[in-house]
Amino acid sequence: MKINCLLFNYFTALDAFGPAEVFGCLEKMYQVEYFSLSGGKIKSNRSNIKVSTKPLASIQDHDILLIPGGFGIRAEVDNRELIDRIRELALKSKYVLTVCTGSALLARTGLMKQKKATTNKLSFAWVMEQDTEVEWIKKARWVVDGKFYSSSGVSAGIDMALGFVRDVHGKEIAQTIAKALEYIWNADKDNDPFVN
Amino acid sequence: MKINCLLFNYFTALDAFGPAEVFGCLEKMYQVEYFSLSGGKIKSNRSNIKVSTKPLASIQDHDILLIPGGFGIRAEVDNRELIDRIRELALKSKYVLTVCTGSALLARTGLMKQKKATTNKLSFAWVMEQDTEVEWIKKARWVVDGKFYSSSGVSAGIDMALGFVRDVHGKEIAQTIAKALEYIWNADKDNDPFVN
Repeated sequence: MKINCLLFNYFTALDAFGPAEVFGCLEKMYQVEYFSLSGGKIKSNRSNIKVSTKPLASIQDHDILLIPGGFGIRAEVDNRELIDRIRELALKSKYVLTVCTGSALLARTGLMKQKKATTNKLSFAWVMEQDTEVEWIKKARWVVDGKFYSSSGVSAGIDMALGFVRDVHGKEIAQTIAKALEYIWNADKDNDPFVN
Repeated sequence: MKINCLLFNYFTALDAFGPAEVFGCLEKMYQVEYFSLSGGKIKSNRSNIKVSTKPLASIQDHDILLIPGGFGIRAEVDNRELIDRIRELALKSKYVLTVCTGSALLARTGLMKQKKATTNKLSFAWVMEQDTEVEWIKKARWVVDGKFYSSSGVSAGIDMALGFVRDVHGKEIAQTIAKALEYIWNADKDNDPFVN
């Protein structure tokens, strides 16, 4: 299975690379690749990482679409070309995973109307405004609605990725990965210590 | 303060980019930059990220040296040029932080003799062999010995980075970052759920 990770300038690195590390632990089953609208070098938010990406148009396999959040989302929600591409990709993909404010980009496609989703706490009000017909869930480490998985802020993406692995491959494999990463997994998607 | 993050082919992305995200949250105080022995594009282990780096020789400020682990360490411990450079950098740096098997690289410089350090659980025996005169601590989320911070596997690096922030800037700032990242911080360096 291919994980197509969509990057844009000023994405939050941990949103993308936390889940990527989880899937990377199953590298015989999953291969993570990095894309951006036009390809080329993409710079992360605050952590200052410059990552090589391929153009979105070059995606061949539509298994899993992974969309991180980050400060750059504020500009990208108005990038019509990007939103249209995400809509196409999300329709074709078997699963769509968003982390943090990545759900704002997905919401802008209109595909999440009447569907459940969450996002990070500090930007909750702003993300809700991107589509008020989404059923936004505030108290959730992550939310699953059919093929759509959305997590709350940053680190919650790692919990969600492990949750996804559990849903698809069973609890034992998810626990083995958490142990290999020495990650203290919050395995209960409804256990959200950051809600207020 | 500059965080000089040392990358090499087949590093573990989360080892480097977890702590980078923590320091990035204090971007007015810290700037993370990425280096490798010769500069250029460096590929991560399993998560398949290609990152731009500058040559180690171009480092100007020697504030904090951050060394991740990863599968590539197995080759790099025998890279004499790299080990010599790390030794110089570690001597000049105010702090040296290693994550996971990154402590094996640092141990090879000889600078950790009679000092306390830890590393990841799955490679513990192999890392110990890199210098048996290091006081390797198995039960530790992370270990501090003077200016040297070393964490156990992968995710423990995030706990350690928050611990470092607490040591230098106080508990409140560390907690604010953990909250912003929605990260469930294991704040006790001696609380190691993965020891066996």
